[in-house]
Amino acid sequence: MALVMTSPAFDRLCVVLVSTRNPLNIGAAARAMCNFGFQHLRVVHPYDAAFREARSAVGASRLLEEAEEYLSVADAVADCTLVVGTTAAGNRQLMHPLYILEDGAAIILEELLRPRGDMRRVAILFGPEKPGLSNDDLSHCHWLMHVPTGDEQRSMNLGQAVAVCLYELARNTSVTAPSDFSPSPASAEELERMTVALLNALHSSGYMGTPSAEDKEASVRRLVRRMNLSSADTSLWLGMLRQILWKLRSKE
Amino acid sequence: MALVMTSPAFDRLCVVLVSTRNPLNIGAAARAMCNFGFQHLRVVHPYDAAFREARSAVGASRLLEEAEEYLSVADAVADCTLVVGTTAAGNRQLMHPLYILEDGAAIILEELLRPRGDMRRVAILFGPEKPGLSNDDLSHCHWLMHVPTGDEQRSMNLGQAVAVCLYELARNTSVTAPSDFSPSPASAEELERMTVALLNALHSSGYMGTPSAEDKEASVRRLVRRMNLSSADTSLWLGMLRQILWKLRSKE
Repeated sequence: MALVMTSPAFDRLCVVLVSTRNPLNIGAAARAMCNFGFQHLRVVHPYDAAFREARSAVGASRLLEEAEEYLSVADAVADCTLVVGTTAAGNRQLMHPLYILEDGAAIILEELLRPRGDMRRVAILFGPEKPGLSNDDLSHCHWLMHVPTGDEQRSMNLGQAVAVCLYELARNTSVTAPSDFSPSPASAEELERMTVALLNALHSSGYMGTPSAEDKEASVRRLVRRMNLSSADTSLWLGMLRQILWKLRSKE
Repeated sequence: MALVMTSPAFDRLCVVLVSTRNPLNIGAAARAMCNFGFQHLRVVHPYDAAFREARSAVGASRLLEEAEEYLSVADAVADCTLVVGTTAAGNRQLMHPLYILEDGAAIILEELLRPRGDMRRVAILFGPEKPGLSNDDLSHCHWLMHVPTGDEQRSMNLGQAVAVCLYELARNTSVTAPSDFSPSPASAEELERMTVALLNALHSSGYMGTPSAEDKEASVRRLVRRMNLSSADTSLWLGMLRQILWKLRSKE
């Protein structure tokens, strides 16, 4: 199973939520942070002071408790060497370089992974639900990043936008342990044993009883080979077919 | 600016929400679908009949209006040739191949982009908020997919999980369409028809007659999904199984 590596580099990333209206969205952001291995949440004057009790923060209550509250964007990003704003990039003339998430995330990761003595922090800013980051908020950013969305509905839900951005960051560092179990394939001997069992059942049922029985046999044999059977599945089939055959014969 | 290409291939993907508790999550899923250019939402007995009014469906009210409601997973995926389950892959012994999102999405895209005359649909299933998809739900799936998350908080919010999965699909639409001439795969409806025929034969033969019949049913259903059946091979199997069943019953 693939797991996210809780990279020490991730410890240098801050998610900054600016003027969030709905505390459920702060909770959802916190939950996504936990999902993908990020710890530092900063909020800039949220509309609801009771955001720490957000019900949507399943499994993220500690992170929410430790969230730092700031009075201004400037304060919230003061210790960061890279400040990235997020935007739906819709109806506004942007004065910043704009990257799609995939490219932006690559730059952020590079910054986080740079081997340095000092603590280089990176902040990703998310604006309030409807209007997004203001021009003043954006002026604190080095560049902007957006999730490519369709024309019809460009703007994302805040909690979903945070989840997608953090997924993209974590995606690149996730360790892929063998995620699919590929069971050992059936041997030709096993396949033939199953074929014979199937043919016997078919003979007993009268299915093969026409002049073209030989053609049918070959067709059944090919059919079994097309099944991509594992060794274990062959056993399962054998068990079923033998039971069916037993029953068919017991009644002859 | 990079935009999601509303690929006609996306028109073949169905998001299937199974037994969703919170209508806000259905709304959030609908919104993410709009964001990334997907149109077909199917819901299987949601807990709240008023889900179409979900406030979280900003910009997605038409999609929500057109969402199709089903009484069972089998019905909801009947016309699909690939059925993918999502799971947090935490505390359950999985009986299916499991891919991380990135790899799973690549397989799904390949399926969606295959040039065919017929309509190949792909379903991605999302289970109810807390327990996720049941073993019975999962037995309708060809394989499973999960978003790699950390140990601390493995399970994602439903709306966020949908957003992340669709983002990953939309992220890379430049996949080149494969051009092989493999036979058209069986639809979920055909697979289920074959499963039922096989189960009937097994019941008649006495194979299922132990207390654990329900487990066995799910195991047979999964077995059939692992067979990589083409539509034509399903017909062949159906013919054989029906003949066997007829013979078994004629002697009862």
